[in-house]
Amino acid sequence: MKPINLKQKHAEFSKQWHPHQIAVVDDMQVLLAKLQGEFVWHAHENEDELFQVVKGTLYMQFRDRIEVVNEGEIIVVPKGVEHNPMTKNGEEVHVLLFEKMGTAHTGNLQHEKTQTHYPKI
Amino acid sequence: MKPINLKQKHAEFSKQWHPHQIAVVDDMQVLLAKLQGEFVWHAHENEDELFQVVKGTLYMQFRDRIEVVNEGEIIVVPKGVEHNPMTKNGEEVHVLLFEKMGTAHTGNLQHEKTQTHYPKI
Repeated sequence: MKPINLKQKHAEFSKQWHPHQIAVVDDMQVLLAKLQGEFVWHAHENEDELFQVVKGTLYMQFRDRIEVVNEGEIIVVPKGVEHNPMTKNGEEVHVLLFEKMGTAHTGNLQHEKTQTHYPKI
Repeated sequence: MKPINLKQKHAEFSKQWHPHQIAVVDDMQVLLAKLQGEFVWHAHENEDELFQVVKGTLYMQFRDRIEVVNEGEIIVVPKGVEHNPMTKNGEEVHVLLFEKMGTAHTGNLQHEKTQTHYPKI
């Protein structure tokens, strides 16, 4: 019930592609992450996933196109849809995520980037 | 699956204290609203409610204190907790809300500010 400053929270961690939990709303969680380069193709079978770009430009790759998500924009990836977030030119992009508690960030895929624990900050 | 620009969406309506739906994530909805002055004391018996301040400064009144929520900050109001959002000095504050589908924005209270329909924009 205290205000949470997104920039301050983003400054509390440096590891990329590793979501950190800042809040819970019913059975959904609010995560922050830092992205640079390309993630990995995956889908979430049962969960939608919302990305909000707080800093930089996110390129959300779908199998048939790429959506450019600028600062101050959100994009919802529906359940079951393959996607692969990417940044360009070495830019580190800061995002906020809204998704169900327990959503695996690489979906069914087990990958070297897979994190099983999201620290609370 | 298209990016949604919050500022552009906020520009599409002018009515204050009237949430507009911009996205759905599983059984939760993302709403935008414009606030000016004081709302009304209420609680949501079964739903948490997240506020994100996109523009301006929100003063979230609780029965025992006021939390100041600045631009770029979020605050989660837990279910059952009485609250009353307010702005100061005639400022119009723009917020994003994240809450369960069907959450009544005045809770159990029926009030002249109560809106039963949230337009999709």
